[in-house]
Amino acid sequence: MTQLVTTIAQVREHLAPARRQSSKIGCVPTMGALHSGHGALIERARADADIVVVTIFVNPIQFDRKEDYDRYAKNLDSDLRFCGIRGVDLVFAPSVVEMYPEPLATFVETPELARYLCGASRPGHFRGVATVVAKLFNIVQPDLAYFGEKDAQQLAIIRQMTRDLNFPIRIVSVPTVREPDGLALSSRNQRLTQEERRIAPLIYQALMDCRRMIESGERQASKVKREVLHRLENQPGFRVDYVDVVDAERMQPVDSITGDVRIAAAVWVGNTRLIDNVLSLIRDSSNTL
Amino acid sequence: MTQLVTTIAQVREHLAPARRQSSKIGCVPTMGALHSGHGALIERARADADIVVVTIFVNPIQFDRKEDYDRYAKNLDSDLRFCGIRGVDLVFAPSVVEMYPEPLATFVETPELARYLCGASRPGHFRGVATVVAKLFNIVQPDLAYFGEKDAQQLAIIRQMTRDLNFPIRIVSVPTVREPDGLALSSRNQRLTQEERRIAPLIYQALMDCRRMIESGERQASKVKREVLHRLENQPGFRVDYVDVVDAERMQPVDSITGDVRIAAAVWVGNTRLIDNVLSLIRDSSNTL
Repeated sequence: MTQLVTTIAQVREHLAPARRQSSKIGCVPTMGALHSGHGALIERARADADIVVVTIFVNPIQFDRKEDYDRYAKNLDSDLRFCGIRGVDLVFAPSVVEMYPEPLATFVETPELARYLCGASRPGHFRGVATVVAKLFNIVQPDLAYFGEKDAQQLAIIRQMTRDLNFPIRIVSVPTVREPDGLALSSRNQRLTQEERRIAPLIYQALMDCRRMIESGERQASKVKREVLHRLENQPGFRVDYVDVVDAERMQPVDSITGDVRIAAAVWVGNTRLIDNVLSLIRDSSNTL
Repeated sequence: MTQLVTTIAQVREHLAPARRQSSKIGCVPTMGALHSGHGALIERARADADIVVVTIFVNPIQFDRKEDYDRYAKNLDSDLRFCGIRGVDLVFAPSVVEMYPEPLATFVETPELARYLCGASRPGHFRGVATVVAKLFNIVQPDLAYFGEKDAQQLAIIRQMTRDLNFPIRIVSVPTVREPDGLALSSRNQRLTQEERRIAPLIYQALMDCRRMIESGERQASKVKREVLHRLENQPGFRVDYVDVVDAERMQPVDSITGDVRIAAAVWVGNTRLIDNVLSLIRDSSNTL
């Protein structure tokens, strides 16, 4: 039975016995509007941990645009059903006042890792993410926490924060879940018109085509980037926010491709900003026959 | 028997059984060079907690001047004896590499609370303090943590950080311990020449005299501040860094004194910068006869 709690005190009270018994606690932080991408995180947590906690909180301080926050899909009832049938033990869905009872005066910053990609186009976004995740880590105190690779820069930042601040938590990443046509699952997909939904998978297709350039031996990031940009900019209905080729671990732009990289893009499709990325693994040629 | 450990893994291993038994863990974070001020923190922790952990780490990232870091007194042997006779259970004295194995990319910031006083004269200082304390909190995971009122702005920042980031830790403050002549105990007092040591207590005397101005009814902070400044600036051998009258909770400068305040000062005595503060409690006149 999935239990819903809305206060920090209830979370702590609920998890105290589990902690005393050294049960492994797995946490899946979400902003609700749960879809199969979250489902994959929950499934992985279910496999690893004794107790699975899903947090549902649309965090105002990570939205750089108020209208995006206001438009963000919220449906706690269906999220609870979603968690219930997947065997989630505890859902923590706090109010904004519960999470921010007074004006926030402490921020967790990762200035270097937030310099590019979404960090560049959404000022303050990753400060808001790192701060709320630090809060949720201290509230739930999980042994494991689960994040999707779709938000690869967020994942890199949370991994870095966890190491740098010595949170005793293992960060587990889960591959992006996609629609049959390749579109990465996102709560924001709900906002697309029929026509926007039809063209949206072209983002993934452009990224995959350019990954093949790397697989075929291209090592200049600028050439790969130019090709993705060309593909996306020529698509009517798309407005490119950014495209970049970055190292897979820290998500920092690279000039030449010498190790694993991600090709990452953010594209406005009508009034909806979608992000996606693909991983390109460079096989060390000295190890191949 | 006081046990010394130097790695994070050892701390966690050492404290795991205590945590499973729900023993209360009290942590006293220090930079070593332990004196009776630290002794008062340890004594209080001994009274509250089942297990007392003292951390000894001269944190490079909180020093704004390299020569201050290099000159900072270090004597682990005598610190261990100090802890031993006071019944400390565990001393964690990590190396710089243990605490910062890779270039740090995550920082805990409290921009508002670090704007004045030491935050203004020591750029980056409180960012370094908040970040290392967050790390130590995650390493030791204490139930209680102890800080001295001498570093009142640090105390305010750590209280704020603990609330804002939901650390499940109670912050306990302990009054400043003073020499018989009033000088606040500090590791930096060791650096004073005989003559500097002779005049150093005049900082406390000036603060106390001005506290009496408030007790006698003065409510304009600027007048109190001017008087402290006058007293300190006229003392040969002193160079005033700052003097301010701030609210006691958040350490923000006030114009008129309507609640509890601290009068805080930083003074260079020769090559040594000393800080001190005194609390002035405003009795609510409606509650007095």
